[in-house]
Parts: sequence; C-alpha cells; structure tokens
Amino acid sequence: MLPDRTFFDRLADAAKAETMPLFRTGASVVNKLEGGFDPVTEADRSAEAAIRALIEDTFPQHGILGEEHGNVGLDREHVWVIDPIDGTRAFISGLPVWGTLIGLYRNGKAVMGLMDQPFTGERYFADGEKATYRGPDGEKVLSTRACDALSEAVLFTTSPHLYTGDLKERFEALQAKVRLFRYGCDCYAFALLASGHVDLVIECGLKPYDVGGLIPLIEQAGGIVTNWQGGAAEMGGEIIAAGSREIHAQALKILQLSASDGTR
Amino acid sequence: MLPDRTFFDRLADAAKAETMPLFRTGASVVNKLEGGFDPVTEADRSAEAAIRALIEDTFPQHGILGEEHGNVGLDREHVWVIDPIDGTRAFISGLPVWGTLIGLYRNGKAVMGLMDQPFTGERYFADGEKATYRGPDGEKVLSTRACDALSEAVLFTTSPHLYTGDLKERFEALQAKVRLFRYGCDCYAFALLASGHVDLVIECGLKPYDVGGLIPLIEQAGGIVTNWQGGAAEMGGEIIAAGSREIHAQALKILQLSASDGTR
Repeated sequence: MLPDRTFFDRLADAAKAETMPLFRTGASVVNKLEGGFDPVTEADRSAEAAIRALIEDTFPQHGILGEEHGNVGLDREHVWVIDPIDGTRAFISGLPVWGTLIGLYRNGKAVMGLMDQPFTGERYFADGEKATYRGPDGEKVLSTRACDALSEAVLFTTSPHLYTGDLKERFEALQAKVRLFRYGCDCYAFALLASGHVDLVIECGLKPYDVGGLIPLIEQAGGIVTNWQGGAAEMGGEIIAAGSREIHAQALKILQLSASDGTR
Repeated sequence: MLPDRTFFDRLADAAKAETMPLFRTGASVVNKLEGGFDPVTEADRSAEAAIRALIEDTFPQHGILGEEHGNVGLDREHVWVIDPIDGTRAFISGLPVWGTLIGLYRNGKAVMGLMDQPFTGERYFADGEKATYRGPDGEKVLSTRACDALSEAVLFTTSPHLYTGDLKERFEALQAKVRLFRYGCDCYAFALLASGHVDLVIECGLKPYDVGGLIPLIEQAGGIVTNWQGGAAEMGGEIIAAGSREIHAQALKILQLSASDGTR
C-alpha cells in the first residue's frame, strides 16, 4: 500500500498544528551550528516529530530521512524525506515563504511530494502523476511555464552569498542573462516555478530534505530538476529547477562553463 | 473632515478589486523605462485610478501624489501618497509580498497610512495614533521590537544590487554587523518591522510613494523612520527604518561613515 493525498494531508496538518502557534510569536531560537547562524525553532523539531510519528505508525516498513531527528532505514525501498520548516530564516522573520516539505522516494527516486505554507493556506501536492494546488485562489492542476529564452526568464535563488569561488562565477554569469532575478524565497520559489510564475530556481549546498519534497511537484507539473551536472537532484547539492527543457538546457550550459574555458 | 479607517478600507478594497484578478494570471507586463526592467501591470494602473476616483470624490480639496497617474496639488495641506502595487517584481513573480500603499500627508508629514496584501489577507493601518493589523491570525495593535544591539538585529533590504559606490560600501558595512539579513521584500519588510518581527529595513533610491504609506505604520507602532542623514523620510531617498531608537542610532552611525573617515 502506498500513501494517498489524504495521508499527505494528515502529515501536513500535523506539522501545521506545531508550526503555526509558534509563527510570529517571537519564540526562542536555538543556534544549531556554533559560529554560524542556523536558527531552529521548537516548531521545527516538534513538527518533524509529529510527521515521523504518523509515518512510523502507518508505514513502519519505510525509511525516514529528516532534518531534525536523524535517519532510519535509508536503504529501504521507500524512504520519506522531511524538512519540517524549509526557510527557518523566513519563519523567524515572520515572512510566510517558508514551507513544510515532505517527499517520498522509491528506490532513490522522488515520486510523491508536498509543500505546505500554512499561513497563506497554500498546499502543493504531487501524487505520482500530476501536481495540484489548493489555496486562497482555489484548486488547480499545476503546469510550468514554457519560457524559450534566458532573456525572458525569471530566476530565483535564496541568496547570492551562498555561492563561493567558481560556483559564484557561474551563478553570476547566469544571473546576468535573465530578465529578472530575486533572492530569498527558499522552497516557495520552487512552488512558484511549479505554478508557472517563475522559470528558474538555482541553489547550491542543498541537503536531500531541502529538495526531496519539491522534485515531484516540479516534474509532475512539466518541469525539470537536476544538479548542475545534469544528474539526479534527489541527493541535493547544486540544484537547478526549470520550467521547460529549453530553459534548463540554456541555463545548464552556462552553469557548466568554467572560467578557464574562456568561452563565455 | 479627515478620513477614518472605513474610508481607508474602501480605498484598499477598491484597489484589491483591480489587483487580485490579475495576480498569478500571467497578464501582460509593460516596460516602463527603456533599458531597465520596471514592470507595470494593468493592475497597477487600474488600482491607482480606482483609489484616486474615491479620493477625488470625497476629498476634492486634497492633493494626490501617485506612482502611475501623476501629481495634483502637492502644495495643499493634505496630500495622498499612493503606490497601488509596491513590489511589482514580486507581483509578476506570483510572490505575495507586494502591497498597496496609501499614505496621507499633512503639511508634508505622513500622519496616516495603510499597507494591504490582499492575497494573504493582511491589512496594516495607522490611524494617526496607533498602528493595527488585521489578518489570518486575527486583529492586533502593532508594536515594534526593542532590539538593543546590531549583533542581534534582523535586517531586510530589497536588493544589494541597488547600492552603488559609497552607498554600497556603507550598506555592506552595516550588513556585516547584523545577526541575519534578507533580501527582496519591498513594503512587506516594513510591515514586518512594524509588527515586531524585523529590526531594520534599509533602502536606497525610494520615491515618496514607496515609503509614504509606511512611515505612519512604523512610527505609530513605536519605531523610527528617517533618511540616512537622520532627516525626514517623507520625500524618499536613502531610507532607514528601525524598531527602536537604540538600533536606529547604531545603524545610522555606520551608514554615515565614509570610507575616508577610516574609523570603521
């Protein structure tokens, strides 16, 4: 038996019950990494615990890869990939562009996924065949936009400061070619891409749980997600999501050039 | 007779009726400036027209300074300052951090103001004495946060690329001192500051209508808004908004240093 939309909704509702009471309350923030600022709220920890409890109860044979509470059975056929609050900096700033990400991998391939933004009331879900949206403006099947040229493309990335060295050079070369770029939306940018409002999302240093729940949304809406080498995105790293194969190919070409090629 | 909350609500509702049907529809975008990308949607133009019609009908003796349809009677005692869609780039990307800004100046001083985000259903309003919020999480009186030190502060700015030359140097010196910074939220960042979630918003090159509706929200919530010289913010330019006088003073000190001072 595989999970259905109802089960994903139960997971998202359980997470929402933990996150929303702590959103915009000024709740205490814990520094996860010494030296760096990586805020993790109580909401993050308790939301993942609530999601895991439901999964362990219903699908005890499945593995779980989670941001907050470690990994179980990563070599099993089915593995859940969970980020209870993607965009913790947005969360602690009161900005409703964070989301709860839940993906289901089968033999290493992301096959179902969900992104929930409980403040705006938006829920994005990929059931294995199609991606759908429910929110303030109704319910619809998602479809990415067919943008033909980089000069017409809208690009999002979390922060230009995340790129260093050669990655920075490549990212900036791409950024210089698009029509419009914006910073700072974490998972929300991927959801906008799945919805056909954005053409490219470029990230680096992602963990599997930062992207696992999003891959099915984008693919099943007609888009494409890979790493900067054009390979599978399921394990994270440097990620490119695009609304069409054309724009993906054009962007990848630039991201793969190195300065020493001298061909830019 | 001065306007009350009901009248501001009528203005916001009239704008919403024009903007929301065009949000996330992929409606046509017009380039306002040759050479640069400054998107203005039909929503922008029609929302301002709807707001102006109500003002002209009810307060014909007032002046109007608007982004889209020019200025009338700027030397009158009362002048309305209107940005129908602040954050047009967010609007055309489907990102609900744009807002409708409506300010009322009396003898050049911003005394009442409103910011409306109709997708999330958030409305921020300053009535001349206090700032209030209505939204998905209820209704409340707004109060800024008392943050004592830059090392604890959360800073927002629209984009680091807007700063050039000396301004860039000063902004980066400040950015280097805060706990957390984020890019890309336009008026929404000011609303989060008025709500006590953010400590500093720094901008440059603002027009009066980019900030006029926001000044009363921040001041009447307990915060402070000036330009980088510490003077009035009503005419735009380089702007600093802070949740407390302490953090404003600390930030201003850095923004006013020039490289040649050698004292940083």
